[in-house]
Amino acid sequence: MKKVDEMDDGNKNKFEVIQEEGIVCNAVEDQGKSCREQLPALVEAILDSCREGSETMTHVESELLPSKEEIKKLVRIMLEIVYPGYYGDKQVDRASLPYYIGEKASELLERLSLQTERAIRHECRRTKRSCTHCVEMGRVTALEFLKSLPRVRELAASDVRAAYRGDPAAKSFDEIVFCYPGLFAVTVYRLAHVLHGQGVPLLPRIMSEYAHAETGIDIHPGANIDEEFFIDHGSGVVIGETTHIGKRVTLYQGVTLGALSFAKDESGELVRGNKRHPTIEDEVVIYSGATILGGNTVVGKGCVIGGNVWLTRSVPPGTTVTMSSPDLVLRQRKE
Amino acid sequence: MKKVDEMDDGNKNKFEVIQEEGIVCNAVEDQGKSCREQLPALVEAILDSCREGSETMTHVESELLPSKEEIKKLVRIMLEIVYPGYYGDKQVDRASLPYYIGEKASELLERLSLQTERAIRHECRRTKRSCTHCVEMGRVTALEFLKSLPRVRELAASDVRAAYRGDPAAKSFDEIVFCYPGLFAVTVYRLAHVLHGQGVPLLPRIMSEYAHAETGIDIHPGANIDEEFFIDHGSGVVIGETTHIGKRVTLYQGVTLGALSFAKDESGELVRGNKRHPTIEDEVVIYSGATILGGNTVVGKGCVIGGNVWLTRSVPPGTTVTMSSPDLVLRQRKE
Amino acid sequence: MKKVDEMDDGNKNKFEVIQEEGIVCNAVEDQGKSCREQLPALVEAILDSCREGSETMTHVESELLPSKEEIKKLVRIMLEIVYPGYYGDKQVDRASLPYYIGEKASELLERLSLQTERAIRHECRRTKRSCTHCVEMGRVTALEFLKSLPRVRELAASDVRAAYRGDPAAKSFDEIVFCYPGLFAVTVYRLAHVLHGQGVPLLPRIMSEYAHAETGIDIHPGANIDEEFFIDHGSGVVIGETTHIGKRVTLYQGVTLGALSFAKDESGELVRGNKRHPTIEDEVVIYSGATILGGNTVVGKGCVIGGNVWLTRSVPPGTTVTMSSPDLVLRQRKE
Repeated sequence: MKKVDEMDDGNKNKFEVIQEEGIVCNAVEDQGKSCREQLPALVEAILDSCREGSETMTHVESELLPSKEEIKKLVRIMLEIVYPGYYGDKQVDRASLPYYIGEKASELLERLSLQTERAIRHECRRTKRSCTHCVEMGRVTALEFLKSLPRVRELAASDVRAAYRGDPAAKSFDEIVFCYPGLFAVTVYRLAHVLHGQGVPLLPRIMSEYAHAETGIDIHPGANIDEEFFIDHGSGVVIGETTHIGKRVTLYQGVTLGALSFAKDESGELVRGNKRHPTIEDEVVIYSGATILGGNTVVGKGCVIGGNVWLTRSVPPGTTVTMSSPDLVLRQRKE
Repeated sequence: MKKVDEMDDGNKNKFEVIQEEGIVCNAVEDQGKSCREQLPALVEAILDSCREGSETMTHVESELLPSKEEIKKLVRIMLEIVYPGYYGDKQVDRASLPYYIGEKASELLERLSLQTERAIRHECRRTKRSCTHCVEMGRVTALEFLKSLPRVRELAASDVRAAYRGDPAAKSFDEIVFCYPGLFAVTVYRLAHVLHGQGVPLLPRIMSEYAHAETGIDIHPGANIDEEFFIDHGSGVVIGETTHIGKRVTLYQGVTLGALSFAKDESGELVRGNKRHPTIEDEVVIYSGATILGGNTVVGKGCVIGGNVWLTRSVPPGTTVTMSSPDLVLRQRKE
Repeated sequence: MKKVDEMDDGNKNKFEVIQEEGIVCNAVEDQGKSCREQLPALVEAILDSCREGSETMTHVESELLPSKEEIKKLVRIMLEIVYPGYYGDKQVDRASLPYYIGEKASELLERLSLQTERAIRHECRRTKRSCTHCVEMGRVTALEFLKSLPRVRELAASDVRAAYRGDPAAKSFDEIVFCYPGLFAVTVYRLAHVLHGQGVPLLPRIMSEYAHAETGIDIHPGANIDEEFFIDHGSGVVIGETTHIGKRVTLYQGVTLGALSFAKDESGELVRGNKRHPTIEDEVVIYSGATILGGNTVVGKGCVIGGNVWLTRSVPPGTTVTMSSPDLVLRQRKE
């Protein structure tokens, strides 16, 4: 067998070679039986790699991680409460709304308590702290989270209005809530941000990576984003952990609000936790593919950042930043 | 609890603080019981937010939206008819093909009728129009859709040929149909475009957002795209609602065919429905990261648009457009 | 019905027109019955398109393709062996680890044998070669694959370390293994690359397109990537079939390692298999949106490639490449 890391040109088809040269027939003689017989040796080799292996590779003698599948269900229930009637296959009317919300909230409380408990216990074990109140902490955290939902609902409604105001292709509020990936990613961020603010380990990041996988929009749960936020299309958007975004800000696909590379070169080990990502003030529009970097970079109120702009310094309020003349070269082909 | 929109630096871990300071023990005393007791008050708070809330947030007293899960199944059945034998776990041969197609078409007719009916009824209710023929309209629409499938199959075959001609890494037609995300997104677009042309609300957009989530390719169902269309890799591609694309056009990842920002600034409210996105004529190739904007922008037949080009005006047929000298700065590090 | 490829402006809503003009009532008279009666004719029309259709469209009289759903399960089992204890809902401790690994390995052997067999048989049939040892080849391939897993585990561990070293937002190794889409895509690539090296048709590409759909990161299984590889955020990353990447290389979102367009223009038909993608030597960092093209392009050891750089020629070791002065235009709006 070829070594995994061997540098080959990737174009040879060993299978074809083998088959054409008739090696197969010899190689596989009586394989039906002998394959199974080789299994124990192969398992032993994998176990060996666990024994000598670093901790990066085996998660044994640790507490259970929160279940990713369960967290997708949690996000679903959260969204059913934030946008009642949009998800699920039951019609909701004024009369049934209290039962609908009550039942969802009750289910969320139980499920979120359990997953938070697992996340906290896992973190305690990992950091070798005593972990005596995980069950209670899970419950308290879930309760506090539920208390935040009316405020999240307000923010989410402001985001829907922002989308309708910002996208001429939007036919209705319903279409936005039901279909727009940008709204999905931002709502999941708003929910994850609450848990992040509560100090829950792992869960917020799992939630934001779920939204990232669904939408291509990568918003770190630690970012701070004010109301009426709209991301159009969205694939490739990256919003870093220490970003601050004001009210009524609009982003298009491919926008990065990231860290300056230089920040990393200062020390041997990376500094974790300092402000590395930019501040975007109210009413800024950032067009597709623009990149804004650095913890000291402030984009002032009402600025417009043009497509593909690469910005690593602050700009005062009311500025429009574009690339200088696109400098395109046009050559006519003879035909 | 921290307020959701509070601007913090995102780096404090409240949980750690709580645990280290031993606050937890007091806070959670007898929580096991008291948590459940707090639920009614929390539910009431959420219900309050529904009562005073704007309509963006609650979808009550409305008709059921089409089911997203059901629409994924619909897309699957449509693809099984467009590419018979590629999906599913049954072998299809000449003898069984009529039964295979017949059974799929019958299922599609029933399921699509129902979902179209739901979409139409939802739209009627939303726009406060009388809705007296939803069931019949659902059936007629589904029938008409089925009639279009032979033509969609022709277009899809032309797209497969285009992919094979355009990608040296393609080993076979089968690999393209079975694996290529670009073909998946374009085929779902072609199906959604038929429904969009029939005036079906919501469904086409749900279909295209499903493909967007799977592939990172965002093609509005309203766009017009002619035969032999190929998108390679595709993540980040955006094709707007009023884009026109001719025959034998190739796009790479990250290409945007979008609206000019200025179009939005003209009026207070957005104009919906005018031509805002470019026209790409036959045999154009657009390399990765290029952005072409504006409803009056026409890229003439046979043009080649280089990577990362930002284009907001028309170019005549046969033109190659590239960025002027890349103007790179190379600094050698001393070591 | 509107023709599928008709160039319309996409803004008319036929449904609204129909309903307002009351055409519906006539059109759908007694549709409940007549819809089903029209089905045979519609099926016949689709079957006609299969009969005259090119082979791109129907996959009949062919062998079964590998099952995509099954291959997702395979990837899951592979990851459970590469990262024991991170997936699944059972706690793994030192005592149970041998049973856990043994059971997973046994299941992988059976399932991978079957899917490889299907992939090989499909390829034999497609290329009209005799196919006499598919079952045995499937088994042998799966066995060889299992042998490679300890090495894949080493490489995966090196990738986790690289992520922790490269991302200040990473809180722990666990978070990286459990949440980071870049690690997911790279690990799936490492597994698919083994099968690609063994000459297994189709399967490696299905695996990599599964990771592409989940993460927006598109790594061709033929690429060669050495240890300690880190992709941060990752949406939009494209790594072509014949790319070579050395040790300790870091990429950010939107980086393309691709083919030069010119290579395609040489011959009428595309040349498949030559080196078309760049070589990246050890310890190179490539920031977001950079594009590096061409099979002869070599980025030397320790180079830093700045964001959005477009590079089509080699650079010597230790070079930092950035775009020349961003040349931004700032205009202040009067308010």
